[in-house]
Amino acid sequence: MVYIYDTTLRDGAQTRGVSFSLEDKLRITQALDDLGVHYIEGGWPGSNPKDLAYFETVKGLNLKNSKIVAFSSTKRKGIKIEEDANIAQLVKTKVPAVTVFGKSWDLHVTEALKISLEENLELIYQTIEYLKKYFDEVFFDAEHFFDGYKENPEYAVKTLKAAEEAGADCLILCDTNGGTLWYETEEIFDAVSKKVKAPLGIHAHNDSDMAVVNSLIAVKKGAIQIQGTINGLGERAGNANLCSIIPNLVIKMGYKSIPIENLKKLYSVSRLVSELLNRPHPANLPFVGDNAFAHKAGVHVSAVEKNPRTYEHINPELIGNRRRIMVSELSGRSNIVNKARELGIELDKNSPEVKKILEKIKYLEAQGYHFEGAEASFELLLKETLGMSKKYFELKGFRVFTEKRSEEEEAYAEATVKVEIPEEIAREKGIEDRFEHTAAEGRGPVEALDKALRKALEKFYPSIKEVKLTDYKVRILNEAAGTGASPRVLIESTDGKRKWGTVGVSPNVIEASWIALVDALKYKLMKDDEG
Amino acid sequence: MVYIYDTTLRDGAQTRGVSFSLEDKLRITQALDDLGVHYIEGGWPGSNPKDLAYFETVKGLNLKNSKIVAFSSTKRKGIKIEEDANIAQLVKTKVPAVTVFGKSWDLHVTEALKISLEENLELIYQTIEYLKKYFDEVFFDAEHFFDGYKENPEYAVKTLKAAEEAGADCLILCDTNGGTLWYETEEIFDAVSKKVKAPLGIHAHNDSDMAVVNSLIAVKKGAIQIQGTINGLGERAGNANLCSIIPNLVIKMGYKSIPIENLKKLYSVSRLVSELLNRPHPANLPFVGDNAFAHKAGVHVSAVEKNPRTYEHINPELIGNRRRIMVSELSGRSNIVNKARELGIELDKNSPEVKKILEKIKYLEAQGYHFEGAEASFELLLKETLGMSKKYFELKGFRVFTEKRSEEEEAYAEATVKVEIPEEIAREKGIEDRFEHTAAEGRGPVEALDKALRKALEKFYPSIKEVKLTDYKVRILNEAAGTGASPRVLIESTDGKRKWGTVGVSPNVIEASWIALVDALKYKLMKDDEG
Repeated sequence: MVYIYDTTLRDGAQTRGVSFSLEDKLRITQALDDLGVHYIEGGWPGSNPKDLAYFETVKGLNLKNSKIVAFSSTKRKGIKIEEDANIAQLVKTKVPAVTVFGKSWDLHVTEALKISLEENLELIYQTIEYLKKYFDEVFFDAEHFFDGYKENPEYAVKTLKAAEEAGADCLILCDTNGGTLWYETEEIFDAVSKKVKAPLGIHAHNDSDMAVVNSLIAVKKGAIQIQGTINGLGERAGNANLCSIIPNLVIKMGYKSIPIENLKKLYSVSRLVSELLNRPHPANLPFVGDNAFAHKAGVHVSAVEKNPRTYEHINPELIGNRRRIMVSELSGRSNIVNKARELGIELDKNSPEVKKILEKIKYLEAQGYHFEGAEASFELLLKETLGMSKKYFELKGFRVFTEKRSEEEEAYAEATVKVEIPEEIAREKGIEDRFEHTAAEGRGPVEALDKALRKALEKFYPSIKEVKLTDYKVRILNEAAGTGASPRVLIESTDGKRKWGTVGVSPNVIEASWIALVDALKYKLMKDDEG
Repeated sequence: MVYIYDTTLRDGAQTRGVSFSLEDKLRITQALDDLGVHYIEGGWPGSNPKDLAYFETVKGLNLKNSKIVAFSSTKRKGIKIEEDANIAQLVKTKVPAVTVFGKSWDLHVTEALKISLEENLELIYQTIEYLKKYFDEVFFDAEHFFDGYKENPEYAVKTLKAAEEAGADCLILCDTNGGTLWYETEEIFDAVSKKVKAPLGIHAHNDSDMAVVNSLIAVKKGAIQIQGTINGLGERAGNANLCSIIPNLVIKMGYKSIPIENLKKLYSVSRLVSELLNRPHPANLPFVGDNAFAHKAGVHVSAVEKNPRTYEHINPELIGNRRRIMVSELSGRSNIVNKARELGIELDKNSPEVKKILEKIKYLEAQGYHFEGAEASFELLLKETLGMSKKYFELKGFRVFTEKRSEEEEAYAEATVKVEIPEEIAREKGIEDRFEHTAAEGRGPVEALDKALRKALEKFYPSIKEVKLTDYKVRILNEAAGTGASPRVLIESTDGKRKWGTVGVSPNVIEASWIALVDALKYKLMKDDEG
């Protein structure tokens, strides 16, 4: 059994320019749990209040597969472990497992930590021995292990033995600087596995473009834990990319790890992380990139479909991706049918409705729409095209005004909105005046517009009050077009019972926000009616 | 000696969305020649007129290191080779070397080519025998070799023998579908090298995230030619990335190939290709990404500089890249002093100026400012705090109005801007009227504001006309605050001579854009004055 240990939220989060909100972290945690990842390293509780908040709120999630892991340094020298505030924070989290990192390279011990080699071993030993009293599983991350082993193999192994003797459940060899080549990994794992008895793991970095193969080599050499991140997120050249590792490990190498049927969620977890980071999803990612199975024109569609093996190294559907063929729309229709089925709607792949929906989606995608993270917008599109949802209101106009009167004064905004509800609905509700024209203010134009829109709708649909926006993201597509580029707005809303994501695209950022806001409120009204 | 064979212009160019103009191809050819690449595969002359044009014009370049290679399929069946138009085009190029590809997988021969296995061997033999009369070097690309070998090893080897007997100078084993794992590459190269005498090469694809290691393994097993592309450009998950292969091969594994002193050009060749493709240069590329040697905050700047080996797997300058240390909330005075030094300003770490600058930065960062990608804003902040820059203009107010009149009509925007220039500047320029109030329209509010601001400033500073916005990004900070969250706008501008990034943060997205736009234009004016 090979355990997948995800550190997207901790090591991945150390990437330049990356910042996950608490909401983001919880959404990713849920998605990783659905995928079936074994461990999720959520952060370093003793390092900052945001990480601490994660450990408190994550308990509220109903996780089925993943164990939450807290990360930490060893205890500080010179104080008793019971008095170490960082370690105390760790203990307070009461998670199922913790990972403690320690230096395995003598140079780092003397130059960076500035302690003796012996003291370092004691810190490792004492920390792990202590934590074993509070946690089922305690893992040891041997930092800079490979470089340390190359320079002073005896000392590097001593750090592992200190952890092992203290009761560590797994010793993870870390290629912290990412400089280790594949044959060095083979040699070092061979040597080390003869010297320690505890199970081994690997934590590779991609500075030499070797992280994936180093991770798989470790497993071939008997390692039982692979640490990595989604999309290889991480500082410098990134951490080991779990989206490459998992399909290779499970589908190609046949190891027992995440169940093979769960792998179809890989693509959506991968996309979710890109969405939450507000970054383009790299098209050339192996397995999970949108180009990964995009066949160039000239390849006969029928050849690929009759015998996909001739051109594809694995079936893309195994990991939730899909074949993209510029000539044919056949792959598109299967996707629509599958997604509709997930929503409880059975459609015929060859029906005109599916064709219509596919055309709409292609049109929108050409403008920059993506439905990952905005499934509610997709559901609305589907149901509206199928005539399964009603028109709740019509926009009769909005105006948004922003002013900044001088360099010293803050800008402010005012919005007016005109909406009208259909006659049938007005009759049902016994409302005479179908029309509302109202105004609101805000610090910014989108805030003002959002307030004005809700105000207008609450008059007819009081349940709108329950809706709260929990996430608002803007991405600029085709950024090279400068201020003429198209903003894509992604919104997450909640009414306390459920959460849903909607999207809007327009060269006008206010209009893009409007589209996403309107979808968010329409979705609420539609779900209320569905009961 | 390991020969580097670049196919950026041929296989790389097959990537979805990639198109190189003839100019681009010649610039890349020159850059690759400067780097010292041994072979440059420029295209398939028989396939289209653009490729043909390349081979005619490339003769005009004065190349010192690289041999130009033309690519082609084998001759057509059923006609004499002398009458094959495609082969004739190949011969006309009169380049030093050609590469011919043929099928090595029996499945492809029968299903895709629809000829007999025997016929296929003849096509290979006849084509190469014929071309050896015209070209010094003829290479054979054995397509789908690894999959072919796994299914019918005897036949796969027969295709190699056919090429060898015809006089091929190198037999390149191609992992066309990219599905081969590293240990399979080892086994297959071991087996094949016993069965043929001609030198071997490798052409790997990255579908399993294995292309780099597969290429290096081939060399360890005796291959003398590696085919790949700059930045791993190529269809699906890309070709083997030469920017990872070359440093590993030459610096780490010590093979004789491109001279080590040439490697410092690697970073700029890599950047050039991204520039010509008009794509962001991926920051996390190993070796050549801007993050490849970017150290996170918390790592003592002094530790890295005293002993780079502790944190860096190679010296970035060997490949033309540089260490980047972020100005971030955890960094301190050392960082400020270093960044100021990069700008040519010497500061005393313990001076009150540095303290003041640090406080400003911390204050801004707490609001969400990041200076990565916005070094111009940082430079402005530094110089303004040190009293080293002047006030070019003052905002007297802006107003931005967005309207959408119905669901069917598109939104549009109008902005008005009032600016005033200081008396001294007006006197210098001989301008009487210091004040300008003007308006502009746009599809969106930021576009309208940008236009109005430039219009107003161009009246006083004509050089503003040279400034173009090349990138506009918005990120919402603390997204969980919904529409009350703070947008951070990142802008990249250029005036044809230099490029610079600026940033603005505000709960009002228009104001945030304003701040970034103003910094972008102030920076231009400041640099113009600095000369």
